[in-house]
Amino acid sequence: MRISIIRKGHFNAAHKLSVDSWTDEKNKAVFGRCANPNFHGHNYVMEVKVTGEVDPVTGMVINLSELKSLMRTEIEDRFDHKNLNLDCTEFADLIPTAENICIVIWQILRKHLDERYDLSVRLYETERNFVEYPA
Amino acid sequence: MRISIIRKGHFNAAHKLSVDSWTDEKNKAVFGRCANPNFHGHNYVMEVKVTGEVDPVTGMVINLSELKSLMRTEIEDRFDHKNLNLDCTEFADLIPTAENICIVIWQILRKHLDERYDLSVRLYETERNFVEYPA
Amino acid sequence: MRISIIRKGHFNAAHKLSVDSWTDEKNKAVFGRCANPNFHGHNYVMEVKVTGEVDPVTGMVINLSELKSLMRTEIEDRFDHKNLNLDCTEFADLIPTAENICIVIWQILRKHLDERYDLSVRLYETERNFVEYPA
Amino acid sequence: MRISIIRKGHFNAAHKLSVDSWTDEKNKAVFGRCANPNFHGHNYVMEVKVTGEVDPVTGMVINLSELKSLMRTEIEDRFDHKNLNLDCTEFADLIPTAENICIVIWQILRKHLDERYDLSVRLYETERNFVEYPA
Amino acid sequence: MRISIIRKGHFNAAHKLSVDSWTDEKNKAVFGRCANPNFHGHNYVMEVKVTGEVDPVTGMVINLSELKSLMRTEIEDRFDHKNLNLDCTEFADLIPTAENICIVIWQILRKHLDERYDLSVRLYETERNFVEYPA
Amino acid sequence: MRISIIRKGHFNAAHKLSVDSWTDEKNKAVFGRCANPNFHGHNYVMEVKVTGEVDPVTGMVINLSELKSLMRTEIEDRFDHKNLNLDCTEFADLIPTAENICIVIWQILRKHLDERYDLSVRLYETERNFVEYPA
Repeated sequence: MRISIIRKGHFNAAHKLSVDSWTDEKNKAVFGRCANPNFHGHNYVMEVKVTGEVDPVTGMVINLSELKSLMRTEIEDRFDHKNLNLDCTEFADLIPTAENICIVIWQILRKHLDERYDLSVRLYETERNFVEYPA
Repeated sequence: MRISIIRKGHFNAAHKLSVDSWTDEKNKAVFGRCANPNFHGHNYVMEVKVTGEVDPVTGMVINLSELKSLMRTEIEDRFDHKNLNLDCTEFADLIPTAENICIVIWQILRKHLDERYDLSVRLYETERNFVEYPA
Repeated sequence: MRISIIRKGHFNAAHKLSVDSWTDEKNKAVFGRCANPNFHGHNYVMEVKVTGEVDPVTGMVINLSELKSLMRTEIEDRFDHKNLNLDCTEFADLIPTAENICIVIWQILRKHLDERYDLSVRLYETERNFVEYPA
Repeated sequence: MRISIIRKGHFNAAHKLSVDSWTDEKNKAVFGRCANPNFHGHNYVMEVKVTGEVDPVTGMVINLSELKSLMRTEIEDRFDHKNLNLDCTEFADLIPTAENICIVIWQILRKHLDERYDLSVRLYETERNFVEYPA
Repeated sequence: MRISIIRKGHFNAAHKLSVDSWTDEKNKAVFGRCANPNFHGHNYVMEVKVTGEVDPVTGMVINLSELKSLMRTEIEDRFDHKNLNLDCTEFADLIPTAENICIVIWQILRKHLDERYDLSVRLYETERNFVEYPA
Repeated sequence: MRISIIRKGHFNAAHKLSVDSWTDEKNKAVFGRCANPNFHGHNYVMEVKVTGEVDPVTGMVINLSELKSLMRTEIEDRFDHKNLNLDCTEFADLIPTAENICIVIWQILRKHLDERYDLSVRLYETERNFVEYPA
């Protein structure tokens, strides 16, 4: 009776993609317009999937209000209306691609979830581009 | 050559979440506003995924008109514009959380599908909350 | 420089459509499955449109946090996870069709908005059915 | 036989909302998290509506490939992956609220459209907040 | 108390855009890939908006089941899974652009709607391109 | 650190479903309205999922501009605004059901992707019907 529940959340943030030790030309060649030194931004949408057994009394895998609150406190308050490169220590030494942001979200939430749950995260950078971790 | 085909359906229903043997306070503490004794409701959206081999002549896993008809007869006619707690015997002794509704849909459809098919069901309670069974 | 700003909100509620003085047969003939005496429900989505002049200093028609807060306090807290027929005095003598719910929302918000603003409301009962007031 | 045709486009940009002559406290009080000095960002979606007579031979109001090209050259190339405050002269002295961005888009496109057309622009800052100009 | 109600419908059809008296080169120059002589196709989505007074007893502008049935009988049965150029007499001498299809839908529905109603039609050819008649 | 990245693309095409050696009656019985000899059409949406290790320097699984370009060159240019039955050799002897189109897209892209990547494709024929390969 293992089932998954998915909750959507969102945050709006600025970022840029570039490797400090590279030249501007190389950054532009690899990251294109995403390397703009003055940043650009996105409406990020995350889908957090928690998998576990259904509690026979409550009929719930996890209390959604608990999951919603965890996502707000740990992810949305941390990243919403922030500059990921400048404001967020998580990306001090990590390039904030959708891939890395997704993995960081997973790592933060994993620490706060009981180990009886499996966890995966889907992150939309735009409606057309999104990532899932773990694969 | 195993492939999955997914068909969307929907039904609009009322429900409430509460455990009969609990006090109002405990129900409110666990289920929040979902425990309102006079019910509330949702536009449920289901995605039914059927997995099997592609027929080399017809190019189909399953005839979609057959799947559509099965979903209409067995699920939509049963739950659409109903009160899940009061009108549906499936939930006489089962709390109609998204998790349990999803499992009930899976159990009903499973009986009507040839065993050569795998089946899974995703159920949206809102655009922001949804479940998948099996995980 | 008149411009419109639109903010989305939502509430999930139960309702039924029937005229008390009519027979069950007549109610069924006119309202179909919506007349189910045990209620059904929807995820209602509202789009509240406020029209006015852009403030030359702030670049805003209305402060969105003010509009968001008004929608939460006056509409979402009032109708979310409620039974419109049983819990909401607005519909004690008014049948809660999408049309009437939309007009009631407009009337409530109109009282709280400065008269320099024009107001209109779009209400989705489902993705496929929605209303706009005023026309 | 006047008809409207609408074409969607999009650009991803960083911005912040603040008035230079105000204190940080006042900016935070009015603009909330949008005043973050290090910027945040959005996936902006624009819907450009052109209204005119249908050409009896081609059955078109305006050639969509022309409109698409105009939107790409004049709006998307100008604002996509940019910092509206730092990179775009249009906002050197104009606060880049959704309202002002929408009006700027309208003003740019208006100059390039034949005067036999009416023009209006809808701009989504998020799925939940959007503006329309003219009202 | 005039209000609008909008109902969505859809049909999937093939079409091509070309003027018979023109050369292939001219058709390609004006209509681009839409001139492919072997046709292409779309999932058309229509939004039919009916405006009128709310009936004080039923709380309805128009009975949605009546509108739904009209849209099915007059539009969907006529155009769904058809080749607009070859199968539909409406387009025997009329190029099936989104503009013309939208006007044809309006003309058909107008004849079947009581004159106390106003009518307008929005037609999506894709998620990115759509038209509205009347403007 | 295996992660998946998904990119959306789209193409609009005509097709019909029928088996040449069958009678019209049998084709209609099996394929319904999809057997219309004059074709119908769809806005196809594909989601291409590529799974691999995140590059520790660039933070990317695969460069999205490379994946986008591959999808444009190999799939969209090939199928967009085409008649799948008449214009595309891939379907000369293969019935263009959603299942088969999805498998063909997978086979084409597989040849162009480095073998360190896993690949899967989801194809929407309509918003309500879609397929995934491999299952």
